[in-house]
Amino acid sequence: MFGVTILGNNSAVPAYDRHPTAQIVTIEDTLLLIDCGEGTQMQIAKYNVRWGKIKYILISHLHGDHYFGLIGMITSMCLLGRQDSLYVYGPSKLKEIIELQLTSADTTLPFKLFFIALEEDGLIVNENKFTVSCFATQHRIPCRGFIIKEKKKKRKINKETISNYQIPTAFYDRLKDGEDFTTAEGNIIKNEDVTLPTRPCRSYVYSADTIYDRKIAELSSGANLLYHETTYVKTMTENALLRFHSTTHQAASIALEACVDKLIIGHFSSKYEKLEVYLEEAKEVFSNTHLAIEGVTHII
Amino acid sequence: MFGVTILGNNSAVPAYDRHPTAQIVTIEDTLLLIDCGEGTQMQIAKYNVRWGKIKYILISHLHGDHYFGLIGMITSMCLLGRQDSLYVYGPSKLKEIIELQLTSADTTLPFKLFFIALEEDGLIVNENKFTVSCFATQHRIPCRGFIIKEKKKKRKINKETISNYQIPTAFYDRLKDGEDFTTAEGNIIKNEDVTLPTRPCRSYVYSADTIYDRKIAELSSGANLLYHETTYVKTMTENALLRFHSTTHQAASIALEACVDKLIIGHFSSKYEKLEVYLEEAKEVFSNTHLAIEGVTHII
Repeated sequence: MFGVTILGNNSAVPAYDRHPTAQIVTIEDTLLLIDCGEGTQMQIAKYNVRWGKIKYILISHLHGDHYFGLIGMITSMCLLGRQDSLYVYGPSKLKEIIELQLTSADTTLPFKLFFIALEEDGLIVNENKFTVSCFATQHRIPCRGFIIKEKKKKRKINKETISNYQIPTAFYDRLKDGEDFTTAEGNIIKNEDVTLPTRPCRSYVYSADTIYDRKIAELSSGANLLYHETTYVKTMTENALLRFHSTTHQAASIALEACVDKLIIGHFSSKYEKLEVYLEEAKEVFSNTHLAIEGVTHII
Repeated sequence: MFGVTILGNNSAVPAYDRHPTAQIVTIEDTLLLIDCGEGTQMQIAKYNVRWGKIKYILISHLHGDHYFGLIGMITSMCLLGRQDSLYVYGPSKLKEIIELQLTSADTTLPFKLFFIALEEDGLIVNENKFTVSCFATQHRIPCRGFIIKEKKKKRKINKETISNYQIPTAFYDRLKDGEDFTTAEGNIIKNEDVTLPTRPCRSYVYSADTIYDRKIAELSSGANLLYHETTYVKTMTENALLRFHSTTHQAASIALEACVDKLIIGHFSSKYEKLEVYLEEAKEVFSNTHLAIEGVTHII
């Protein structure tokens, strides 16, 4: 399982029962929370997210609609008796903000809380099954997007063909890594003759809050799923630029240029009760666009 | 209109769609927000509270379930273009916490935000129509409760009797203040013969988080409405003491001793989905007890 569950899809002021940005990324048994607007812990309860499995929290930037729920999450994890370490990535000031609030409440956490300041682009998490890297976006304050990518899986031994050759089982691990086998006589048995390929590594790109920036298309190139904000409708290009956000057409253009399989749009303005306008406009440019709807999981 | 609207009634971790502590006190055209747990701004929207009329925010203490929603409230007031000054009362660290978050988001407020540190008991707000005073409660960290009291209204001129006397209209304001009138001949016209009494000043006592403390009964003596926390059921006196909270029977005993008209209980534990047990137990001691139910307004 590799999927993204939307917990919040609104920008700035919550409205129409839409909540500020938060998403859960599930990779098998590990959960990552990307951004954590106010009320995220209530959304987590509402949608039965497995709190205890959240190992990483990635905060893109310090606008409140992306992190005001973090201190509540951490405090509730404490009250619920969490013991596993928690890794929080975000702007460097985040540590000070959270620690000041924990100290003021005289809270001692029963688990280890690690803050990792996002100060440059590149790899930030290196798990057995996936990696997370971050990249700077152009926003009003320092902001980063995230790329979550499965690691290449080992090839599988082809049980139907391997018996045709005399390859010691001790060499199987190297076959799984893609090596050819050379016999004592110097004959080469090609790896693809005795192993099966694995499916390509899946990836998810969360491009946070950003102006229209073709660098994101480059970074998202070939991704299975891209989340791109669409705070504004297509006619509001000037407002978008002025406020360091994107329009529907801009987000969809990035998806098109990047040749991603699927685009999710979100960070909707509180001006719009109905979201159809966002979807219709984005689809004019990139047909496989979906609205970020709270509670919906997108399998990658 | 003098009333209290419950926006949140739960303690610690939100549960069963119950939110952390927040209440709106309405006194005619002025609104006060008492405590502001996470999600308070969503509750304000849900229950159609007039955001713009909130002039005072009173934060009892720095446990998250009483103030984690404050930064979101202030930020949303900013985004909604508030211009009126806002007065926030709370522990001294609150200013640092909020200012750090505003600075980190590069937010410049379009209104004046005044922080007033609660450092000693006594009068904190002196409005034309009411006063607010605060008192320390015994809790795990410094905590204060609040007494909101109408000011004595001026007496009204009794139109039916005043024409029987020759009192210059210039003296009417002094009559309204309760003075007798002395005629040129030295005769005294008693105030109560020419004016009508006003009803007694109403008051509301919010006793925040606290252990069982008879001082609260003394401070609440004769109040129309008392809010008292009941984190625990009656059998859990030891837990209550250990965690600086109160039981149902303790809260109701305070109400009984104080001879208040009505008691609201809240700050319910997430262990209980149903709240009847709290109500039944409190009523064993003080019959006019009501559960704090979100969205319900108690007219004083």
